[in-house]
Amino acid sequence: MKKLWLVYVLLIGIFLVYVLNYKLQARTADPWETTGLRGNIEDTYVMVTFQSGIDYWKSVLKGFEDGAEELNVSVEYHGSTQHNANEQMTVLEQVIAKKPAGIAISAVNSKLLTATINKAVESGIPVVLFDSGAPNSKAYSFLGTDNYSAGIEAARKMAELTGSAGKIAIVTTPDQHNHQERTDGFRDTIINEYPDMEVVAVQDGRGDQVYSREAAEQILTRYPGLSGIFATESNGGIGVAEAVQAHKGPGVSPKIISFDTDKGTLDLVKNGIISATMAQGTWNMGYWSLMELFQLNRHLAAAPSGYSQYMPMTVPDTVNTGIDVVTRANVDNYYAK
Amino acid sequence: MKKLWLVYVLLIGIFLVYVLNYKLQARTADPWETTGLRGNIEDTYVMVTFQSGIDYWKSVLKGFEDGAEELNVSVEYHGSTQHNANEQMTVLEQVIAKKPAGIAISAVNSKLLTATINKAVESGIPVVLFDSGAPNSKAYSFLGTDNYSAGIEAARKMAELTGSAGKIAIVTTPDQHNHQERTDGFRDTIINEYPDMEVVAVQDGRGDQVYSREAAEQILTRYPGLSGIFATESNGGIGVAEAVQAHKGPGVSPKIISFDTDKGTLDLVKNGIISATMAQGTWNMGYWSLMELFQLNRHLAAAPSGYSQYMPMTVPDTVNTGIDVVTRANVDNYYAK
Repeated sequence: MKKLWLVYVLLIGIFLVYVLNYKLQARTADPWETTGLRGNIEDTYVMVTFQSGIDYWKSVLKGFEDGAEELNVSVEYHGSTQHNANEQMTVLEQVIAKKPAGIAISAVNSKLLTATINKAVESGIPVVLFDSGAPNSKAYSFLGTDNYSAGIEAARKMAELTGSAGKIAIVTTPDQHNHQERTDGFRDTIINEYPDMEVVAVQDGRGDQVYSREAAEQILTRYPGLSGIFATESNGGIGVAEAVQAHKGPGVSPKIISFDTDKGTLDLVKNGIISATMAQGTWNMGYWSLMELFQLNRHLAAAPSGYSQYMPMTVPDTVNTGIDVVTRANVDNYYAK
Repeated sequence: MKKLWLVYVLLIGIFLVYVLNYKLQARTADPWETTGLRGNIEDTYVMVTFQSGIDYWKSVLKGFEDGAEELNVSVEYHGSTQHNANEQMTVLEQVIAKKPAGIAISAVNSKLLTATINKAVESGIPVVLFDSGAPNSKAYSFLGTDNYSAGIEAARKMAELTGSAGKIAIVTTPDQHNHQERTDGFRDTIINEYPDMEVVAVQDGRGDQVYSREAAEQILTRYPGLSGIFATESNGGIGVAEAVQAHKGPGVSPKIISFDTDKGTLDLVKNGIISATMAQGTWNMGYWSLMELFQLNRHLAAAPSGYSQYMPMTVPDTVNTGIDVVTRANVDNYYAK
């Protein structure tokens, strides 16, 4: 009698295990459903920058981390502490040695970093570039701001602020290609779209607050009725703001449009001294870099050999991460959290 | 006695259920792991084209479907049968009425479709444009070929094929903006990078095989020692190939570079009459459109109101889906499967 009961207990137990297991499997084996896009938590994707401590990268890294969390993969952040190509090369070499699942790098120097980037790609590691590219490298993709388009957007905002009329000046860094592009996009748009506006001066502010302030003071003295100034980077924007504050007299003072969203610039937008600043799509750079690397990693794993000519066609060639116009109305969204 | 055994059975059964449930929950509740990126199979993402039956869209739809399968969401394909803006508008209106999770559309006419696209965006539906854009619409993103870059790639391939020397002609469709961009990218690159090459003729082939053949015949008669011809679209490429075959005499015949990967063009690449054709990143257009729409849909669901100014910054502004050079060596990969 006792033994029979034991058999019953075992049979009922086994039946319960069977039912639960069946339910568990049914959940994943439904032919209409897939498990979603999910990686391996042991796969590490690495972001490499230069001047790695500056605020600018925070939002890029946030996008990179957000993507990694969604896809269940891991992230590391490395970079050169200085604006130095040799230091960044050393950092990149160390990252390559660990054979990560993918590398997103902003190249401090497009030419000097190319060989090391190619070494990573040739050893089978997916590499994408963001923010600052290396066009002749073998990296699969570039994600960053289209600076000419950013200049166009700045010009349209300037037209809105000035009633599409008046004299406009630009304070920029002519030596830097991306700043030249912002200037060209701005100036071409004024010429093509706003017949009553005129760019009367383009001055070199050397990416420096003091030089830009001096440049703006010269412009303000020469053109007392100036309607607006576009600064193509944030140090220049702060210098221009100081000059405009110092020159403030009766009548309309020129509207200022600046670039980027460091705290100093945002504070000046918040108190109305800078009318607008152009925010780059930094979160996009990080998030979509991670998405592309994940995609490349999966296809590379499926490819017969490491480096394949077909690979580039699974990710875009170039991604223009976009521009947002930041004004007093939405400035609070842009302070680092 | 019997009753006691029954209690034992029940207790053991409950214990087993508890253990299994615990194990099941532990699997999803691991703090180091996330479930991955996964949508709802009832969410339908719609692709809208024009001339919806042509081969060109097959690879775009494949990318769209691949993305949807990975993310566990559904896909529908719609389009106008003709190259007709009113017909496409009607199709788009019908799609909007069903309130899909997202719409990826290639606009047959950038101006005429803008109002209907804006209607979709304003009603809270994420919309991206691919292949053929509508730059003044409120769509969140555009994904397609950068045609100027495609012209650059074609010029570099032509230099490779001709030993970077000789007279080159272009057969194009000057009325169409994207073809003008391909021509400009090609010509600028020859001028800037290849001092021993010269673009001697740019002829209108009207996107038509017969006109392009006649244009090529005129060019071949005028420049007997021609080194190469670049056709900016595939009908023209086939016409040019016919002209070159008909003119074939002793000595070197001009190399032909064409555009796109329809069967007629691929066959001519396979038998060596066309040396190379420029393949657009059509799979990329579909796959990354789906990825962006999925991203927009999630953020829109989280946003307080339907249409938000902040939304564009979660997806790129513009995606250049890239170009592959197809030659005899890799042509077999490009036939529709």
